[in-house]
Amino acid sequence: MPDEFDVIVIGAGPAGENAAGRAGRGGLSVAIVEGDLAGGECAYWACVPSKALLRPVELAAEVRRMPGLEVGPIDAGAVLARRDEAVSHYDDAGQVHWIEGVPATFVRGWGGLDGPQRVRVAEPGGGSRLLTARHAVVLATGSYAAVPPVPGLAEAEPWTSHEVTAVKAIPERLAVIGGGVVACEMAQAMHGLGAARTTILVRGDRLLPRMEPFASDLVAESFAASGIEVRTGTGVVRVERPVPGGPVTVHLTSGPPVEADELLVATGRRPATDGLGLASVGLPADRVVEVDDSMRATGVDGGWLYAVGDINGRALLTHMGKYQARVCGDVIAARARGERDDLPSLRDTADAYGAPQVVFTDPQVCAVGRTEAQARAEGFPVRAVEYDLGAVTGAYLLGDGYRGRAGAVVDTERRVLLGVTFVGPGAADLLHAATIAVTAEVPLDRLWHAVPTFPTVSEIWLRLLETYGL
Amino acid sequence: MPDEFDVIVIGAGPAGENAAGRAGRGGLSVAIVEGDLAGGECAYWACVPSKALLRPVELAAEVRRMPGLEVGPIDAGAVLARRDEAVSHYDDAGQVHWIEGVPATFVRGWGGLDGPQRVRVAEPGGGSRLLTARHAVVLATGSYAAVPPVPGLAEAEPWTSHEVTAVKAIPERLAVIGGGVVACEMAQAMHGLGAARTTILVRGDRLLPRMEPFASDLVAESFAASGIEVRTGTGVVRVERPVPGGPVTVHLTSGPPVEADELLVATGRRPATDGLGLASVGLPADRVVEVDDSMRATGVDGGWLYAVGDINGRALLTHMGKYQARVCGDVIAARARGERDDLPSLRDTADAYGAPQVVFTDPQVCAVGRTEAQARAEGFPVRAVEYDLGAVTGAYLLGDGYRGRAGAVVDTERRVLLGVTFVGPGAADLLHAATIAVTAEVPLDRLWHAVPTFPTVSEIWLRLLETYGL
Repeated sequence: MPDEFDVIVIGAGPAGENAAGRAGRGGLSVAIVEGDLAGGECAYWACVPSKALLRPVELAAEVRRMPGLEVGPIDAGAVLARRDEAVSHYDDAGQVHWIEGVPATFVRGWGGLDGPQRVRVAEPGGGSRLLTARHAVVLATGSYAAVPPVPGLAEAEPWTSHEVTAVKAIPERLAVIGGGVVACEMAQAMHGLGAARTTILVRGDRLLPRMEPFASDLVAESFAASGIEVRTGTGVVRVERPVPGGPVTVHLTSGPPVEADELLVATGRRPATDGLGLASVGLPADRVVEVDDSMRATGVDGGWLYAVGDINGRALLTHMGKYQARVCGDVIAARARGERDDLPSLRDTADAYGAPQVVFTDPQVCAVGRTEAQARAEGFPVRAVEYDLGAVTGAYLLGDGYRGRAGAVVDTERRVLLGVTFVGPGAADLLHAATIAVTAEVPLDRLWHAVPTFPTVSEIWLRLLETYGL
Repeated sequence: MPDEFDVIVIGAGPAGENAAGRAGRGGLSVAIVEGDLAGGECAYWACVPSKALLRPVELAAEVRRMPGLEVGPIDAGAVLARRDEAVSHYDDAGQVHWIEGVPATFVRGWGGLDGPQRVRVAEPGGGSRLLTARHAVVLATGSYAAVPPVPGLAEAEPWTSHEVTAVKAIPERLAVIGGGVVACEMAQAMHGLGAARTTILVRGDRLLPRMEPFASDLVAESFAASGIEVRTGTGVVRVERPVPGGPVTVHLTSGPPVEADELLVATGRRPATDGLGLASVGLPADRVVEVDDSMRATGVDGGWLYAVGDINGRALLTHMGKYQARVCGDVIAARARGERDDLPSLRDTADAYGAPQVVFTDPQVCAVGRTEAQARAEGFPVRAVEYDLGAVTGAYLLGDGYRGRAGAVVDTERRVLLGVTFVGPGAADLLHAATIAVTAEVPLDRLWHAVPTFPTVSEIWLRLLETYGL
């Protein structure tokens, strides 16, 4: 195996794989270094297993809303078995095969920078190896769950997203610290699969604080209806778990302590910079790697260093990391060939509009662009409209008691959408229409001629535009 | 009640209601005339009840694809009861209330033209009344199911869409003549609700002949797997039903005759021109009313006559009729006020792109714009790409054995989408993104930056663009 490549990618998660794939497609020789499983956090311990756990819970709820159908209790064992299949039984042979087909060279080991254009790989057997990059090194190591410095918390060995998505036995009582996406999704999955007493502990005043307030309200309402307890405005002061694996007690700034069989911490992420050797190229060792819109790290001489995905801190979302990686792989190839590197396809323009995101709770929360509050804070001339998603005929036809809501944030001068939010059961695939409308800045007066089919839930588009005054 | 109005609308289906609503919003006095139920075919005997019958069948199939969930047999009685609720128990009081709130005057009776700007209403009690329109008359009478002139067919009193959607008892054996949308949807609904022996008789060589061939193939495959028999390339030569309401025998040009308990005819529609008085204003009495893009009937002096929805033959789809009606109501108001009548919002531009449509079978077939064959026939420079929808992670997570396919038809010179088709379980709400992309002519190079969220089925957008070469 050679030790010199055109491009070396550190980290074989979705972002790293895509950077390798696009650079390889551009004719460059590529090595991709990974110490854990190729495929990354998303494939084994995040997006994929979490949705494998959530979908049966959501589907059972859909059936319960539909007269004429009866669904039995969820067989959690079968759901966990399908989750195991979804994560390929934690075997990355298929991913490595895909990488080799790029073609790219897969290097098993932990990679770190060792000065400009050099990557030191700590091999699993204990050895070490030095690789050299002719054109570029791409950092794609992602992020880890952050565990806040609460007394007793680390010692209690709490679950993070990593452990909860790999769950083998559903706890009877689950306490969840945090109110963001992972907290909400995993609280609902565990509750639906048998964690009868699930309690979410939120420091702030609402779940999903980055979403429109009506999204938080509808998720909270659903949680209350299904018996998930949400305590807002309370901080964790101390955690006790006297017996490893035994019951855990969470002491709070307000209200009685919570006792549970397992504790999930979902309070945020930190960039995976450990051992990455950032200091060897003059970058801060423990912070996100800042990049320009071509994904090139700022402040590094020679412009050979790139970073895609969570490690650059732009948007902690698999699909955005992959998008950045496509830009990155393509721009590296263009630069290596001495071609124009300023085409629109060679710049990340999507992140600036506000990345699309789906929270796979029931109801699902789907948003792209800016919330009303964000748009106002940024000085846009704004008018926001909302509409009851359950009042659309297509939603009624999906079942009784469909609860949902949609909102659009309009730039009143340019008459384009700055942001759109849909909240409703199974609403995920409503979002891409909004993503196109927001990122391609399709004017309202053209959206008016994009007729939603009757009777689909997409008729909400007509209602939002009518509500705006069209 | 006055006898003179600014606008008189004949027909209170979705198109008529929307024309009345928009004209009323424009400050005009409006009367709307309806001899049957206000709300129209769609609300009582088409879109709404058919989807109320189909959704439980589709949902049960979704559950059967999901390990960990068990669904019992469908309770057809409960499904029919919900259908009755969905059609408001065939009571139009709510619709009349909506009309009165426009505000518009609801006139119960059968309306027909009686010379220029005059509408004669045959009242339910037997009386007759003459209304005069100061500015416009809008025809919105829709269409009827056509029953072809096959010997014995009319005498056998077959079901049409009207009767099948209002079904009170599911027949054990159902024969369906036709292979279009109504035939496919209702065959599947009846089969799923208990019509164990359902046979579809198609003159041509495939189901859904206006859709991409891969759509026909996937629906046929699903029908075969579920036990619905499809016989293609066979014509009906004679129908026998010796005892009214008893078994019916359908004799065919090829193959053995089919015996069934009920017979559904779904071979097309004819415009509802009966008693409409078209000859009184110099138009052919039994054909669609041709209109320009402002929905104004061509060939009528004075330009006071408009037609929206099925009666104009543009697109036999509720949502397109409603769209045309919005254009129509607005343009009438603009013309009545002497304002500009050539703004983009005052023209039907959507129909020319190819109306969006969803067939609510399992798998659903969703299409907008042109098929590859249509685009080539019209002389566009075309490249078509396809991708296996079931290969997208988001589809896998919805259940085992997800079968689907997507296709895009690209104008290779302008690099815009001419048509998009999605086939897959529950794919309906994927379509609106394509409807925006096609009708707003969003270039591929901008669609590239509209990032689909992972792991949703919408990731198909990325796969299609990659397949095209982006």
